[in-house]
Amino acid sequence: MTRTVLESKTKTVVIGFDEPFCVIGERINPTGRKKLAAELEAGDFSTVERDALEQVACGAMVLDVNAGVVYNSNPNPNETEPPLMRRMIELVQGLVDVPLCIDSSVPGALEAGLAICEGRPLLNSVTGEEERLEAILPLVKKYNVPVVAISNDDTGISEDPDVRFSVAKKIVERAADFGIPAHDIVVDPLVMPVGAMASAGQQVFALVRRLREELGVNTTCGASNISFGLPNRHGVNAAFLPMAIGAGMTSAIMNPVRAVEMEAIRAANLLMNNDANGGEWIRFSRVLDAVKEGKGFAEASAEVGASRAGGRSGREGRRRRG
Amino acid sequence: MTRTVLESKTKTVVIGFDEPFCVIGERINPTGRKKLAAELEAGDFSTVERDALEQVACGAMVLDVNAGVVYNSNPNPNETEPPLMRRMIELVQGLVDVPLCIDSSVPGALEAGLAICEGRPLLNSVTGEEERLEAILPLVKKYNVPVVAISNDDTGISEDPDVRFSVAKKIVERAADFGIPAHDIVVDPLVMPVGAMASAGQQVFALVRRLREELGVNTTCGASNISFGLPNRHGVNAAFLPMAIGAGMTSAIMNPVRAVEMEAIRAANLLMNNDANGGEWIRFSRVLDAVKEGKGFAEASAEVGASRAGGRSGREGRRRRG
Repeated sequence: MTRTVLESKTKTVVIGFDEPFCVIGERINPTGRKKLAAELEAGDFSTVERDALEQVACGAMVLDVNAGVVYNSNPNPNETEPPLMRRMIELVQGLVDVPLCIDSSVPGALEAGLAICEGRPLLNSVTGEEERLEAILPLVKKYNVPVVAISNDDTGISEDPDVRFSVAKKIVERAADFGIPAHDIVVDPLVMPVGAMASAGQQVFALVRRLREELGVNTTCGASNISFGLPNRHGVNAAFLPMAIGAGMTSAIMNPVRAVEMEAIRAANLLMNNDANGGEWIRFSRVLDAVKEGKGFAEASAEVGASRAGGRSGREGRRRRG
Repeated sequence: MTRTVLESKTKTVVIGFDEPFCVIGERINPTGRKKLAAELEAGDFSTVERDALEQVACGAMVLDVNAGVVYNSNPNPNETEPPLMRRMIELVQGLVDVPLCIDSSVPGALEAGLAICEGRPLLNSVTGEEERLEAILPLVKKYNVPVVAISNDDTGISEDPDVRFSVAKKIVERAADFGIPAHDIVVDPLVMPVGAMASAGQQVFALVRRLREELGVNTTCGASNISFGLPNRHGVNAAFLPMAIGAGMTSAIMNPVRAVEMEAIRAANLLMNNDANGGEWIRFSRVLDAVKEGKGFAEASAEVGASRAGGRSGREGRRRRG
């Protein structure tokens, strides 16, 4: 059974076919967040702190950390990203005890993150591009970490799901040449917007099944891409996630500070028999009750979480090592 | 490709693998509705009228009609149900132009309904019980209508999904002996409450796939059973429906006057490529916008529907015969 093991300083999270869906919080990322980018250049990490705490309170099991800001004072990310990644990871792992996902297009930033990160982080990402394979797989091997593999290559992103499957297969095979096992590859089959490509949902569901059955790998995605350009995006996302989970998707990089999507994932965990005695569903229902009474989702989540011993969720508690 | 064709006086609805999910409105049923039962005995059909109009406005494509009331004045349903069924069907088909689903445990009521019903209704239901098979299949054959087949038999409802599959298979085979084709059998694999049986969701998803692949039949279910006994039932239902649709479920007998569940089904139709150009999703988003502004779901649905030519949904319009 495919199990991708991630670790923080003291906790283990397993991405796997028989595990609760792994929610990887996407918020700590200055891409498209001008205010956050400006704060980071000015050395202000207050938004990063809040995003770390809120996402974990809302149910993120892993936090993605992306330092992809282009400084006004220095436009070369190869110089600015590595020290910023180091600083952000130190900050985040000092605040919350969940595994991290080190996310950068700059290999030097990935290595800087790997060098400082406690436990066993997820590396984000390798692609089927030759240059990227050669730069990233040696890091994956050196640090013995799992890696997100995105199904595009030097020809770009194919609209043909068979081509995307082939790219994923190539990455798994190339990783094997480095001695990296398939269970340490988490494939992102690439989610297209269903508003632009009517078959986008069915493509992903079919791809996830193939990736699982033929390559034995875990999968992830940028879940909200599916609803790009449509009205009431949360409603599309909240149906897409359970359908993807039913097809075998095991994780997503997403915003966990959204009640609608998190409710859909909690319900899907229950329906996939990955919520023993419905304990997490019942706990989450108390959060929703508080939201109905006017509380914000993050605040309600933190309070219901904090009403339990130590503020640790049951799932994380059970997974604790030692 | 399996197509179960239902007809009203002028419209056709197809239940099928490549069709939008068929929502069968369950509200016109006095079971567990004491007030409605008392009204029906008193000859007051105002609730039936409202339920018919509201359900169609909210998106029901077919209406279930159940006359299962036990009169205080006459406790024999074999005497009271047939004339009540006749009257209710005449009333409903005079109000709305959607196919009906004639629902009774009393064979005489089913036949009374079949005799009066316009178009090609769905009969609800046969089971694997010998007496029921012998009573119902001749009616199905005589009137050339499709039938719901529930997967229990003389031994009751099995918790073993393989047994439930076998019961469905037996019904399909017995129907074939009568010359009734598999595409006119809509199997209900029976949904257990996930709060009582942790594998209930996975059982249904696996059964639906088998029923489709091995027997080539359409499927239906009483969708809300899945969440029986749990808090925040709508949240469970709203994840269950897209997951069941992803597994191949093609219809459900359910309450369509619920925005959360109907939103999940509309999104699943979009994600299964059964909503051309997202037209239905965009229309439905306008309903949700009106709900956010404080309107009731039925009222908002009726208004958005009525803003289109003739108040007919695009789907029904396209399916119109002639």
